[in-house]
Amino acid sequence: MGRWEPNARGRLEQAAIELYIERGYEQTTVAEIAKRAGLTERTFFRHFADKREVLFWGSGTLRDHLVNAVAAAPDSAAPIDAIAGAVESVGAVFQERRESARQRQTVIAANAELRERELIKLASLSAALADTLRRRGVADPAASLAAETGIAVFKIAFEQWISDPGEPDMSQIVRESFDELKAVTAGR
Amino acid sequence: MGRWEPNARGRLEQAAIELYIERGYEQTTVAEIAKRAGLTERTFFRHFADKREVLFWGSGTLRDHLVNAVAAAPDSAAPIDAIAGAVESVGAVFQERRESARQRQTVIAANAELRERELIKLASLSAALADTLRRRGVADPAASLAAETGIAVFKIAFEQWISDPGEPDMSQIVRESFDELKAVTAGR
Repeated sequence: MGRWEPNARGRLEQAAIELYIERGYEQTTVAEIAKRAGLTERTFFRHFADKREVLFWGSGTLRDHLVNAVAAAPDSAAPIDAIAGAVESVGAVFQERRESARQRQTVIAANAELRERELIKLASLSAALADTLRRRGVADPAASLAAETGIAVFKIAFEQWISDPGEPDMSQIVRESFDELKAVTAGR
Repeated sequence: MGRWEPNARGRLEQAAIELYIERGYEQTTVAEIAKRAGLTERTFFRHFADKREVLFWGSGTLRDHLVNAVAAAPDSAAPIDAIAGAVESVGAVFQERRESARQRQTVIAANAELRERELIKLASLSAALADTLRRRGVADPAASLAAETGIAVFKIAFEQWISDPGEPDMSQIVRESFDELKAVTAGR
């Protein structure tokens, strides 16, 4: 097999997710993923460190997107509004990948280790956002509170978007969730 | 050595925390903990399943305390206020154990596996609080949002309380943090 396969990464990812759903994440081997994709194990390891990375390689991109969006918010934006704008813009990116996001979520929900990894990912997103707010001159605890609550909204909006059988708009769900957050925390 | 040692549990806990701080959690064995406490390994295992449980056995009590306090809030209480009251009442319990809470936090902060376990604990507290709110008739996403933000406030207030070199009152920090949350999420 040639060294450079067309769209090897995408094929491996699709094969992995299919197998994780069919057989379970634990039971799936890298050899099986490569075989399903019509590629070799060597090719798999040129793209992913291990079978878990297939599910989490996008974390860094997501973090960068959120951090850049918060950093680019107008100076006049309140911390929570800078965060809300960033999460909303991520919603637009997710929108184009709803089916793969839904499949990924199915795999993660079924495995304790993956659920833990997802929690760690969310905690690291929150820490990165709090840092970004601090660099914008926001003091603590406001920076931490805005970041933590922003990630909580992201998580809840994502779950709502992924479980809705219709074709909901994630950015809109995010906006509605931040409105709901304001109502909830105001004690209304 | 006799089967029932006076305050064996407390002695084992103190010995474990001391060793985790002195040598690191990873490097400490159950045999060393038992020896430091002047007890046997068998006695250790009558009280704790493993060396990690020394740090996490209180999670169930904490969850029950929070859940019971939310369940006991007046029917008229807004969800966020029911949560805030519960976290504030936990603050009073923590207040009496500040030094051991601080030591525990030092151990957890130094070890990735323990930090992950702590995240899982917080996520399970949030899920239990959201369930309790739903049983009080609070719909989603309000139930999840109030629970997630309440646990975020708990985490941030706890860190502030533990790192303050003075003798701050945790319940007061919790109250101030919920006020700050209201200000932050209102975009002020």
